[in-house]
Amino acid sequence: MVFVGEFGLINLIRKKFKPLRKGVLGIGDDSAILYKDNSNLLITTDALVDGVHFLSRKIDFIDLGYKSIAVNFSDIAAMGGYPLFVLLTIGISDKLSLNQIENFLKGIELIRKVYPFDIIGGDTVRSDTFFISITAIGKAYKKPILRSGAKAGDRIYVSGKIGDSGIALDIVHNKLKFKVLDRGYFLRRHYKPEPRIKLISYLLSKYVINSCIDISDGLIADLLHICEESKKGFNLKLDRLPVSLEKIKIDKNFSMEDFYEYAASCGEDYELIFTSPSVIDCEDVFKKTGVLVSLVGEITKSGYSVFYNSRRKDWKSLKKGFVHF
Amino acid sequence: MVFVGEFGLINLIRKKFKPLRKGVLGIGDDSAILYKDNSNLLITTDALVDGVHFLSRKIDFIDLGYKSIAVNFSDIAAMGGYPLFVLLTIGISDKLSLNQIENFLKGIELIRKVYPFDIIGGDTVRSDTFFISITAIGKAYKKPILRSGAKAGDRIYVSGKIGDSGIALDIVHNKLKFKVLDRGYFLRRHYKPEPRIKLISYLLSKYVINSCIDISDGLIADLLHICEESKKGFNLKLDRLPVSLEKIKIDKNFSMEDFYEYAASCGEDYELIFTSPSVIDCEDVFKKTGVLVSLVGEITKSGYSVFYNSRRKDWKSLKKGFVHF
Repeated sequence: MVFVGEFGLINLIRKKFKPLRKGVLGIGDDSAILYKDNSNLLITTDALVDGVHFLSRKIDFIDLGYKSIAVNFSDIAAMGGYPLFVLLTIGISDKLSLNQIENFLKGIELIRKVYPFDIIGGDTVRSDTFFISITAIGKAYKKPILRSGAKAGDRIYVSGKIGDSGIALDIVHNKLKFKVLDRGYFLRRHYKPEPRIKLISYLLSKYVINSCIDISDGLIADLLHICEESKKGFNLKLDRLPVSLEKIKIDKNFSMEDFYEYAASCGEDYELIFTSPSVIDCEDVFKKTGVLVSLVGEITKSGYSVFYNSRRKDWKSLKKGFVHF
Repeated sequence: MVFVGEFGLINLIRKKFKPLRKGVLGIGDDSAILYKDNSNLLITTDALVDGVHFLSRKIDFIDLGYKSIAVNFSDIAAMGGYPLFVLLTIGISDKLSLNQIENFLKGIELIRKVYPFDIIGGDTVRSDTFFISITAIGKAYKKPILRSGAKAGDRIYVSGKIGDSGIALDIVHNKLKFKVLDRGYFLRRHYKPEPRIKLISYLLSKYVINSCIDISDGLIADLLHICEESKKGFNLKLDRLPVSLEKIKIDKNFSMEDFYEYAASCGEDYELIFTSPSVIDCEDVFKKTGVLVSLVGEITKSGYSVFYNSRRKDWKSLKKGFVHF
């Protein structure tokens, strides 16, 4: 994600550094576009820090290598592109073993077999805190898809299952309010997210996609990003969300409705939310790409409405995920 | 600089990740070139870590902002280009004040006034260790200049004064073996290096430049990089190096010859070493760009020879700077 959090830094930087050149899209979307008129190159950067985004004493370093690339490629997928190049910067602390580093690189090799790319540079530095900072460069299949392109009447779709990654985080931090039946599944979903490159490629070959974002802050929070940038509203049907109901145990303290609301606020799913004027043949998409796609609502002229079984939920008391602004 | 040091990591990565695509120049040069045949976009990345590359309790954060961009632009200058875009990632620790962050951004504003560029993305994350990871994108004025382009018979030139930054580091670490007359000068040279964009632009408009590198490891070490990549040798005249003799005090324990040898091994000067078949009119270059350019030797077919007042120095016992391989 581009410029989150600390000190409202994004606003400070946006204000201070107004763009000098036209045809360049900067801070605000998942990736920046280098020269709109030209090559449609996309560029994005993401940093992962030990103790903040992962715990080096707990994480499998093969997963870490895979994920550190995957989260960047997810941003490129959300812009309607595929990856070409990576710049890999690692801040290496004394506590790391050579074996951990080798496993980290193994994870990168793994994802490179799925999405071929070249490592064209980087930096390795010493650092008391282990960190990874990756810049990925990609190319849009057609025109880059922007957050700002949603139109009233567009259908809202999401890929994959929503909430899995957040469940894994709550498992790890002992914060889960319900029981899970397949712990391993949720952990895999969190530690090894899949960038939806193949999905977006197939969708673009068949349909018009007006806007897209990947879920890092939570489904509602990220849908809000689309609607803010597009100056639109939405109707969202919570009960239509694709969630892993069969892998958890609901009880009277945590209802099915609670679960749908929870899933809509979970971050780091790295699934895509996209809007389209077309009726997408979700069965066909699943057959061709292996990825579930679900219709969950529609873009409106204005206002945010969330429904559960046709009953409108109170917007103010609704969990929304990590909202920056 | 691209992939230095730890664990011989560069070799591990080079071996594991052989390029998949042609027309792309990756690890090894100052910057990578995106598509040789296309837009001649250059891309480079550099990380600065608190406690390793600077001390946050000592450094002026305006300087830090300026320098963190400048070192990346220096890599772009060394490839014969000018900067266009920056992606700015900051790992922010609790110990930093808002004032420090604001000064850091002020430093970036300062350098942006000299070399206009857009910030098109980045990431701000929490981190126990404060770090800055910057990716800069530029464009070559003509064909990118490679390290591998040096030809036997080329004259070797350097920009600016050599050794200043190393003197500053030794002042800060109390390791200096001689007295300095202008402490402030050396500190300024270390904390506020100037990327040689204007110089390379002017040179390319008048002369053929066959190879170029910026000095990060030391003059001899970086000249070795050129010669290794070009499969050539060099004759270097130590006494021709542009050094700040007038700002230090030589005595019997540290001779003039010692000083020249020392300067040739100092890192982080961010001056350019470049080779050219042309006789460069250094006086004209200085008039037009304000940058000193000095002829210090020539490229040969093979072998490394260093002379001081026409006397050949012993290669093995010579200080060379930070040699990776």
